[in-house]
Amino acid sequence: MDPAAKKKALRLLSYGLCVATSRDDTGLAAGTINWISQSSFTPPLVMVAIKADSGLHRAVAASRIFAVHIVGKSQKELAAAFFRGAQPAANTLNGYAVETGLTGAPLLLAPPAWFECRVVNEVRGGDHTIFVGEVVDAGVRSEEEALTLRDTGFAYGG
Amino acid sequence: MDPAAKKKALRLLSYGLCVATSRDDTGLAAGTINWISQSSFTPPLVMVAIKADSGLHRAVAASRIFAVHIVGKSQKELAAAFFRGAQPAANTLNGYAVETGLTGAPLLLAPPAWFECRVVNEVRGGDHTIFVGEVVDAGVRSEEEALTLRDTGFAYGG
Repeated sequence: MDPAAKKKALRLLSYGLCVATSRDDTGLAAGTINWISQSSFTPPLVMVAIKADSGLHRAVAASRIFAVHIVGKSQKELAAAFFRGAQPAANTLNGYAVETGLTGAPLLLAPPAWFECRVVNEVRGGDHTIFVGEVVDAGVRSEEEALTLRDTGFAYGG
Repeated sequence: MDPAAKKKALRLLSYGLCVATSRDDTGLAAGTINWISQSSFTPPLVMVAIKADSGLHRAVAASRIFAVHIVGKSQKELAAAFFRGAQPAANTLNGYAVETGLTGAPLLLAPPAWFECRVVNEVRGGDHTIFVGEVVDAGVRSEEEALTLRDTGFAYGG
């Protein structure tokens, strides 16, 4: 296999930008992700690949819950703010206001939409773990469109 | 959970359009998909959710191989041609020229890029199965950008 062709072909997969959050005994966890897709209508499932050596991974693996926020077209700085995990303070996460969701995951108030999941399956192997989550709650806060990875000029894949 | 909010939030996930192909004892299989993402850099893995009651699913489940083609910005009609599975003829699939890849999967010549996978894991449950594939070959045929689901006005999710 030609590594350059592999990299180029995989980078042609299209992605949006999301911020995922969770919580375990040590506190809140969060991270910007783009390796996510729905994987079933009934029940509503999503599959998300989370970096194995991250605080977000540790929290999701322990708590079996997570929330996903759609980053809006105008919110590139929100996505960038979560590149390096979670910095919690009183009622904020990385400077952004949060409330607590049904599952206990922190929900950011700024993104246009979010959903919360309970992990129903996981696949280890590789440098990320695939968590399959059943969507148990969701909300829409504004009509803003989603930011795509291509919009930002960022790359994660290949 | 509010079903309308769930639908709207899930539809804000961003997708590209791909054509997946495979082959089993009964012949070639194919379908347009958008529920796909990379899931590891090392080894290079992708996760793809394929409709459980489809010919493509039957072929991938049996043969453990599949190919994924990135649909180009100008190739909406190519994506639409594979909505209803595979119609093979001599050296063509749904009217598009093919060659045979490393894994035995048919490779379409028209799309800007493709990669071939061997299934290393699967997760059943829900109306789609998640197949985790290790990328074993890849190629780039043109410099065309990828078509997104949003570009087409199609929806698959929610």
